[in-house]
Amino acid sequence: MKTINIAVAGLGRIGKIHLKNLSRNFAEIKVIAVMDVFEESQAIADEFHVPVFVQTFEELLAVPNLDAVVICSPTDTHADYVEQAARAGKQIFCEKPLDLSLERVQEVLEIVKETGVKLMLGFNRRFDPEFKRIRQLVENNAIGEPQIIKITSRDPGPPPVSYVKVSGGMFLDMTIHDFDMARYISGKQVKEVYARAAVKVDPEIGEAGDVDTAIITLTFEDDSMAVIDNCRKAVYGYDQRLEVFGSQGMAQADNNFPNNHKLYTEGGISGDLPLHFFLERYDASYNQEIREFIDALVDGTDMPVDGEDGLLSIAIGLAAKKSVAENRPVKIEEILS
Amino acid sequence: MKTINIAVAGLGRIGKIHLKNLSRNFAEIKVIAVMDVFEESQAIADEFHVPVFVQTFEELLAVPNLDAVVICSPTDTHADYVEQAARAGKQIFCEKPLDLSLERVQEVLEIVKETGVKLMLGFNRRFDPEFKRIRQLVENNAIGEPQIIKITSRDPGPPPVSYVKVSGGMFLDMTIHDFDMARYISGKQVKEVYARAAVKVDPEIGEAGDVDTAIITLTFEDDSMAVIDNCRKAVYGYDQRLEVFGSQGMAQADNNFPNNHKLYTEGGISGDLPLHFFLERYDASYNQEIREFIDALVDGTDMPVDGEDGLLSIAIGLAAKKSVAENRPVKIEEILS
Amino acid sequence: MKTINIAVAGLGRIGKIHLKNLSRNFAEIKVIAVMDVFEESQAIADEFHVPVFVQTFEELLAVPNLDAVVICSPTDTHADYVEQAARAGKQIFCEKPLDLSLERVQEVLEIVKETGVKLMLGFNRRFDPEFKRIRQLVENNAIGEPQIIKITSRDPGPPPVSYVKVSGGMFLDMTIHDFDMARYISGKQVKEVYARAAVKVDPEIGEAGDVDTAIITLTFEDDSMAVIDNCRKAVYGYDQRLEVFGSQGMAQADNNFPNNHKLYTEGGISGDLPLHFFLERYDASYNQEIREFIDALVDGTDMPVDGEDGLLSIAIGLAAKKSVAENRPVKIEEILS
Amino acid sequence: MKTINIAVAGLGRIGKIHLKNLSRNFAEIKVIAVMDVFEESQAIADEFHVPVFVQTFEELLAVPNLDAVVICSPTDTHADYVEQAARAGKQIFCEKPLDLSLERVQEVLEIVKETGVKLMLGFNRRFDPEFKRIRQLVENNAIGEPQIIKITSRDPGPPPVSYVKVSGGMFLDMTIHDFDMARYISGKQVKEVYARAAVKVDPEIGEAGDVDTAIITLTFEDDSMAVIDNCRKAVYGYDQRLEVFGSQGMAQADNNFPNNHKLYTEGGISGDLPLHFFLERYDASYNQEIREFIDALVDGTDMPVDGEDGLLSIAIGLAAKKSVAENRPVKIEEILS
Repeated sequence: MKTINIAVAGLGRIGKIHLKNLSRNFAEIKVIAVMDVFEESQAIADEFHVPVFVQTFEELLAVPNLDAVVICSPTDTHADYVEQAARAGKQIFCEKPLDLSLERVQEVLEIVKETGVKLMLGFNRRFDPEFKRIRQLVENNAIGEPQIIKITSRDPGPPPVSYVKVSGGMFLDMTIHDFDMARYISGKQVKEVYARAAVKVDPEIGEAGDVDTAIITLTFEDDSMAVIDNCRKAVYGYDQRLEVFGSQGMAQADNNFPNNHKLYTEGGISGDLPLHFFLERYDASYNQEIREFIDALVDGTDMPVDGEDGLLSIAIGLAAKKSVAENRPVKIEEILS
Repeated sequence: MKTINIAVAGLGRIGKIHLKNLSRNFAEIKVIAVMDVFEESQAIADEFHVPVFVQTFEELLAVPNLDAVVICSPTDTHADYVEQAARAGKQIFCEKPLDLSLERVQEVLEIVKETGVKLMLGFNRRFDPEFKRIRQLVENNAIGEPQIIKITSRDPGPPPVSYVKVSGGMFLDMTIHDFDMARYISGKQVKEVYARAAVKVDPEIGEAGDVDTAIITLTFEDDSMAVIDNCRKAVYGYDQRLEVFGSQGMAQADNNFPNNHKLYTEGGISGDLPLHFFLERYDASYNQEIREFIDALVDGTDMPVDGEDGLLSIAIGLAAKKSVAENRPVKIEEILS
Repeated sequence: MKTINIAVAGLGRIGKIHLKNLSRNFAEIKVIAVMDVFEESQAIADEFHVPVFVQTFEELLAVPNLDAVVICSPTDTHADYVEQAARAGKQIFCEKPLDLSLERVQEVLEIVKETGVKLMLGFNRRFDPEFKRIRQLVENNAIGEPQIIKITSRDPGPPPVSYVKVSGGMFLDMTIHDFDMARYISGKQVKEVYARAAVKVDPEIGEAGDVDTAIITLTFEDDSMAVIDNCRKAVYGYDQRLEVFGSQGMAQADNNFPNNHKLYTEGGISGDLPLHFFLERYDASYNQEIREFIDALVDGTDMPVDGEDGLLSIAIGLAAKKSVAENRPVKIEEILS
Repeated sequence: MKTINIAVAGLGRIGKIHLKNLSRNFAEIKVIAVMDVFEESQAIADEFHVPVFVQTFEELLAVPNLDAVVICSPTDTHADYVEQAARAGKQIFCEKPLDLSLERVQEVLEIVKETGVKLMLGFNRRFDPEFKRIRQLVENNAIGEPQIIKITSRDPGPPPVSYVKVSGGMFLDMTIHDFDMARYISGKQVKEVYARAAVKVDPEIGEAGDVDTAIITLTFEDDSMAVIDNCRKAVYGYDQRLEVFGSQGMAQADNNFPNNHKLYTEGGISGDLPLHFFLERYDASYNQEIREFIDALVDGTDMPVDGEDGLLSIAIGLAAKKSVAENRPVKIEEILS
């Protein structure tokens, strides 16, 4: 078996996670180069014994014998990097979202298609053991035909307002994971979106033109439904739950906890809070995600999450924004046409 | 203390529960008469040692020294009986809903107001120990300002289609309890409703012009929200859960179970299903409800659920119906004006 | 069907519970008399509309047409009252224990046997819905052959030391319920006991010659085992749990709670403490217990808990005391022979 | 900081786990050699890029610049290897037990003491996050003074009878972990043991002179108690639970599960079984254990589990065996003197 040569672009929080997982867990690959705009990231390259460190994506693509790139740079670089990598004939893993503009996403996907390279989108939650188990139960028909999917997704705290301003808004930044989860669990296409939102956490978020609290109803092509509730701030921590109600039963995934102890005292019965945030909660999913990317490369099979998945989640996000703006249900075909 | 003389009208399932509770648990009252259109119900009167059994509401109101009536007859008699009882100067407990027509409800409430009698509406779930505990936590500010209320309300099976046809539709028949619960927990008025519904359980329900599966988003006057998910059939039984998410925490009430055992076998870990249906699940609430009615009579205090509560739940239900029909959010003021 | 005429002797906490249940829930019986040494208890007779109130057991037995007595007086009267009732030909329900002296118990059971009356012992926990469900699972072979039974039984607080002194000791006063539970769940006879005990709650209990904390290992005739852990004081309340481990699985009963809410705050996830003490925790069991007594009277069937059960629990308790005193395992046959 | 050079002896299941963890997670160390009697294990050395593979312990100790050895070979080699390593001046991590003979253990510990090397014993469960959390609660006085410790420890299935014969018996092979856990949680010395045991799983285990099911009561120096229940076969999988009851509260650790999903169907509510066996259940503990060994080496601090801990667990195990043989409580001083 030929070793696959991989490069990582962007060494922020997620980039380092992917680099760590790629370095440790795979006999089939070799990380031959990393890229980051900051010179200080050379230290990360050294820590993981990566022989080449560069500061531009062009240099990265020029590294000899490179087979694939893992793109973890800021969102506004995703589309360009994917386009360049595709034109250079490299296989691509890219963090979500591809871009905040639907037109640009469509353009890039067209280029990817023409070049024939593979593209996987980083919807890591699909690879979370808890949610995978629920999807499995749906696939095995353990609960019959899904009728109502419920996703609770609340962050422990909001990002800085400066970030909020460039994030594309809560629906494209945070809820986009939940949109993809709804599609993943259901296995069906979303045809309509109604979103009701408010500013409850921080008035500055509202002043920045965004919302921080929302309930979003999705209708699938077969009239089954999903409902997502979001908040940018849950004082008790990261709240990530899933429930699927079907014609033959219901399956639930609760939060994950650092431990399962229970303490009984005069004051009541208590236990610890959920795992703090996405790095802790979805640790296993990042590893599994990159494993399935490598497996698809090695086996030459389809990517488990592809560009179309990225496109549709963005379209749902844009429909949700329009729904809030116009306070009416919005059809996906209004967005995609 | 003067004994309060009470009569019960209607000896169906709920009527018998109220009669049993009234007969057993109160030293302050006496059930002096019962009424049912069916002659066979004489036996029920005998079983509970009620001295007078009649078959018309007129006869019932004519029973000497009667102080109050508990109306448990079919929905289409509620408005007339309440009107008659009010004009006769009797205190009134009436099962929900007062009527399916908003105009008729308003008319009856006007009459009740004029006569000065007290009227309590039978939203029994407010008296359920689980939900009362959650309301208490909200009142005690244990979770800060409520931002998202989530109500899961699914029945073990749909009623006969013949009943569906005269029920006023799922929103007025089943969800009306959830609308009241959202108002009770929040303590705020609903200003807008968006309902998305489908026929997933039985096509005959659709042919009868109704729906059996729905997600309803309520917006309160302060832009906080509630979301209700309903289905007429959950194969695993009666599913009644509540969650309130607020600025300082979250409170949840899970289903109630006949017992708490866990069985570990080679096949997995299992436990019993929730209590079967409303008679089992809300047994304690019926008792507590009638106790608070009696207490309000004895103490001369306000009724814990009044005509306005009944009116507003119907208005929300009508808004939900209109929302589904026109696929758009509907303001309560559109309904009430 | 002939109405059964019943009298209650002793109107303390348990006596009042039995009187309330007997008064409310049974068409087949009539409480025709009650007895209590305190004149003030006349008020209780009045409250429950019992026509005859007397202050001696002799007078009670003399009430005409009396069929059965429910004995809830202090422990040191049990044996005498049972003997008298048996000689008078009355059916008997008696609270546990029959007596603290094994010889006296054997003597009384002999008399009961000669007179041919029925005797039921008040081991109410056998009628608790949680534990009944576990017994059912054992009977239905859901967990195969029981190998280890684990009983946790801790009180919220110790009784007054004055009571401890006359109680016969923790094993005969408190653990006796657990001994009966072990026998009930197992369905087998205990052959040997090892008890390890300490004074951890209150040194005065130790000075009174008793213990307040213990672990007791029971060995059944087939070498399967049970282990009981006791403490007179659990700061978090009444702790009553049961677990049966068998060749094909395990069944557990957790504590019962006033409600099932969960509260998530910055400080952790918490819930309410278990139901406070035996009156709350075993409320349903007292009702079911007396129902099965009445049913056995009406149907002429065997009593669900008989004198032999009472005798054996006392024998196990005495073996436990001897085991602590001599720090060695004690065979039941040492006690019974 | 000087790099610590480490060797691993024995590449069976546990040896491979330690090798994997040592290879991946530590910048401070280097695995410079491994040893295994089987030639085929060369492949494992290659997989983890260990430069030196030898087949005898003598050769291993002769590897230049070696600082410490991790001994994972069969139990009957532990004492000799520890002795040799100590005499060669190497720091030592050794899997439990040191030896089945108390005299040999004492002898080896004497040598270790003389040579001044450090010795850590592999009681990995002390490093399990669940149990560590419970110990923390005890240390932080969250439950007051511990009075009763309860350990449930059941394996998914028995080892082969051939292994049982050389294992030293269930108490020294399996329960030894629980003895150490009781000491770790309590922080006190055990003074007396009573064990009641039976053969319930497989008669051949009995024929081999061992038991497979037991309840063991430990008494600590302050008369607080611990109770352990063991079975070699739980059909529902590996059952590892812990409960500490104290003067101010109770702390519990439940089993660990591969996921937390719940499935509701017509047949009941169910979930997956616990993690299969020790490799899955204690995965994190092996990593943490070896991390604390390395930390103690680097920092020059005391080992978190030392030879004395190993000695005392064996003494408790021997007392338990004697207790079963003579059916009486056995003092630890009877064993150690």
